Amino acid sequence: MFEAAELGRKVSKEEFKAQMPELRAALLEAQRALRDSHVSVIVIVAGVEGVGRGEVVNRLNAWLDGRGVETHAFWDVSSEEQDHPPYWRYWRALPPRGNIGIFFSAWYAEPLRRRLSQDWQEARLDAELGRIQDLERMLAQDDTLIIKFWFHLSRKAQKKRLKKRFKDPASRWYQRPGKGTLSKDYNTFVGVAERVIRGTDCGLAPWYLIEAADVRYRDLTVGRTLLHAIKEKLANKGRYMEEPSLVSHAPCLPEGEAARLTILDHVDLEARLEADDYSLRLGQAQARLRQLTWQAHEQQRACVVVFEGWDAAGKGGAIRRLTKGIDARLHRVVPIAAPTDEEKAHHYLWRFWRHIPEDGRMTLFDRSWYGRVLVERVESFARADQWQRAYHEINEFEQQLSEHGIVLIKFWLHIGEDEQLRRFREREQVPYKRHKITEEDWRNREQWPAYKAAVNEMVIRTSTEYAPWTLVPGNDKRLGRVTVLETVCERLHQALNPKAAH
Amino acid sequence: MFEAAELGRKVSKEEFKAQMPELRAALLEAQRALRDSHVSVIVIVAGVEGVGRGEVVNRLNAWLDGRGVETHAFWDVSSEEQDHPPYWRYWRALPPRGNIGIFFSAWYAEPLRRRLSQDWQEARLDAELGRIQDLERMLAQDDTLIIKFWFHLSRKAQKKRLKKRFKDPASRWYQRPGKGTLSKDYNTFVGVAERVIRGTDCGLAPWYLIEAADVRYRDLTVGRTLLHAIKEKLANKGRYMEEPSLVSHAPCLPEGEAARLTILDHVDLEARLEADDYSLRLGQAQARLRQLTWQAHEQQRACVVVFEGWDAAGKGGAIRRLTKGIDARLHRVVPIAAPTDEEKAHHYLWRFWRHIPEDGRMTLFDRSWYGRVLVERVESFARADQWQRAYHEINEFEQQLSEHGIVLIKFWLHIGEDEQLRRFREREQVPYKRHKITEEDWRNREQWPAYKAAVNEMVIRTSTEYAPWTLVPGNDKRLGRVTVLETVCERLHQALNPKAAH
Repeated sequence: MFEAAELGRKVSKEEFKAQMPELRAALLEAQRALRDSHVSVIVIVAGVEGVGRGEVVNRLNAWLDGRGVETHAFWDVSSEEQDHPPYWRYWRALPPRGNIGIFFSAWYAEPLRRRLSQDWQEARLDAELGRIQDLERMLAQDDTLIIKFWFHLSRKAQKKRLKKRFKDPASRWYQRPGKGTLSKDYNTFVGVAERVIRGTDCGLAPWYLIEAADVRYRDLTVGRTLLHAIKEKLANKGRYMEEPSLVSHAPCLPEGEAARLTILDHVDLEARLEADDYSLRLGQAQARLRQLTWQAHEQQRACVVVFEGWDAAGKGGAIRRLTKGIDARLHRVVPIAAPTDEEKAHHYLWRFWRHIPEDGRMTLFDRSWYGRVLVERVESFARADQWQRAYHEINEFEQQLSEHGIVLIKFWLHIGEDEQLRRFREREQVPYKRHKITEEDWRNREQWPAYKAAVNEMVIRTSTEYAPWTLVPGNDKRLGRVTVLETVCERLHQALNPKAAH
Repeated sequence: MFEAAELGRKVSKEEFKAQMPELRAALLEAQRALRDSHVSVIVIVAGVEGVGRGEVVNRLNAWLDGRGVETHAFWDVSSEEQDHPPYWRYWRALPPRGNIGIFFSAWYAEPLRRRLSQDWQEARLDAELGRIQDLERMLAQDDTLIIKFWFHLSRKAQKKRLKKRFKDPASRWYQRPGKGTLSKDYNTFVGVAERVIRGTDCGLAPWYLIEAADVRYRDLTVGRTLLHAIKEKLANKGRYMEEPSLVSHAPCLPEGEAARLTILDHVDLEARLEADDYSLRLGQAQARLRQLTWQAHEQQRACVVVFEGWDAAGKGGAIRRLTKGIDARLHRVVPIAAPTDEEKAHHYLWRFWRHIPEDGRMTLFDRSWYGRVLVERVESFARADQWQRAYHEINEFEQQLSEHGIVLIKFWLHIGEDEQLRRFREREQVPYKRHKITEEDWRNREQWPAYKAAVNEMVIRTSTEYAPWTLVPGNDKRLGRVTVLETVCERLHQALNPKAAH
């Protein structure tokens, strides 16, 4: 999930200066409109340590009109608060209609802290997240706009930021002692954070994941997202929105190319693999895979491999190279085409539940349940509320598989637009390949930008700790195939030898 | 909650015979319409042991057309099922569109069993209920109608039923050995069941609580409720309903007076208390209360007492008698009238959160948050979706108070319609009472049936193990006051001496 906030998005000084005045004016105007409405706004500012939550809040306070904005940091529990139920302190702080309340971490600080300290087990955390969902839904249904920002820094960027702060006399004093321990906790923290965010990310109170490495990008994005959310909410005033489709989850990006980098932009399509290297690594990986799949069978661990990708990205070729390394008794390939009548008569996930392998086997899906948020979204086969809901449904589905011990491996085979065109033309030339290219493929090509947006959102919202996506550089077929094989080996190895993973 | 299913509702043989043929014909017709639709139906049949789930399912199978109905009992997990994620077995059994699946206990058997055997802690149970909510919401959004019946028997009725079955050679063989142990488990089972039902009762997949003591009432009610739900769903076809207001939670009752008894009908308004008894018991209770409230203060336990009731039912008098028994430093009375401007600018629960006592104190609410589901419902001050949501919101609110250790005591002061009239007239006669009677009171009186329905639903849906309602017989003022005082004493005593409670 956090890959989406490690893209190196940036805003230059000039761009910032150019965009800021307009944003400030618009924010003040939105605030004026808000004041006369029945809407109240809660802005939650949370994230890993060192992301500059204080700076963001200061910036917001500078941009907004102080009348009608209140900031609350929920530090140590006062004795009065201790003498009341835990949520009493938050209820006290709720902003009245027409006003904005900025909350540091709000009701998220406690669950994060308790889980990190092992004070709470996972089930206890999940139960608390349910309570939080309840609270947020209730407030949202009462015309409260809840905007939750999660600020993210990569481990490296966090380390650098904290070091810098420590050196600076102006900020040193508020750094906690024992620097360096933070970095050790980083992975654990991020793991818990992901669960918390996923468990409380719903249409009524969405999380916005903000890359915090570049301060100007961070602040402009927060400002624009807040502005957009307030304007949307006021435009739909009085109409409480249960339908997640009516709410956009993506932050509003600043202008400028570097501010709009996406995950797919980070795939290196120039990389190449030589023929010799290819043969060697392919053979090695296949041999290793044969061993690993038998080992998985012995341990009764099942495995599900999902293949998605652009038309002509090389899914078929990769699958053939992969299955060559697995005993035929251990695996099945399930190609997903149009659903049968019986499948159509059920929930869209039903046809995939049918094909979930039993313990000790492996199933390769050539296209998958992700069709819901790719082709069905882009071609409008699914309604907006349907595909919007699907991210959560899919995460829940995959979590159930994972909890049962199934190893989940998901590939997006990525190629460039030009490379696709070259392959389409090639297919038209070669007689035995001609059947592989249809009118539909040419039509899909026209939708490239829409698909690209859908792929980005899919990867961001369904890359979980238990089922991460791997983006495969596919312009070079050799590299693509080897990447797939080696990734499967690596993930299987880790799952079967949990200690060796660290 | 289960009080609602211990009312002694009945249907006579003649009534049953009169109503059954029409119901059967209507069910078959609904089933025909269903077959041509995109809707699938899941009927979940659950409840305490001995309620006759098998009989109900047999009856449904007899009434419905066998083509298009499939029954699933999820008994022991097969080896194939064991080799898949736990929900795989349910996905396999999902009925296709146009069909009906009848599930014995479905996904509820496992959580009930695990919690009862202490295998799961509460947090684990809550997490699982969250997962169930997710599943049911997902299916409902995909045009599956989910109807959940919970059949209830009082402890006594269950004992009797099981005894009878044991004696009958035809049913004896399937009774589990060790009869009598069941009865011991009864309270624990009912406690867990309440939590499970409350945690999964939502507009998209509501529970219907069915009194199972009378077999004819039970079966007719199930049939009528099922029929109504299918017809409603088909009428709204394609429109997925997130708004709980669009779904009625109450079962459809058979015709006949005895089939429509309500909770308020069970309050004995004829009971009287003599003056001498009154003075004695009042004095004793006040003395006891003084002791208990100081004890509560020492233990730092807070207490919240809610007073609701008909106009002129004697709330004020009861509160005065109660406060006489409590040190003024320990309690506050909060009268709830129209909200202030500041209160209006917040969520409706905010004004009550403000007045939650700190540890060791007591707050008496003269009217309360229940206004949302009483006056605001009846007078349409709240929209239907708002007051419908309120039951869940209130339960969640009270659960938070209770978890913090606050003792919650809720009174509905009940009087008859005639008695109210008598008191209104009396007030008009007595000069110093005249201010207490307004035009509004007379207007409210005209809404008596609507209020009665609202009170019934309120008591059923918000009487929880942690915050039960006490219905106070108020026709006799003395009896009403003593009941209130003695109940407060008893509840406080139990809370402060948890061991003595059993």
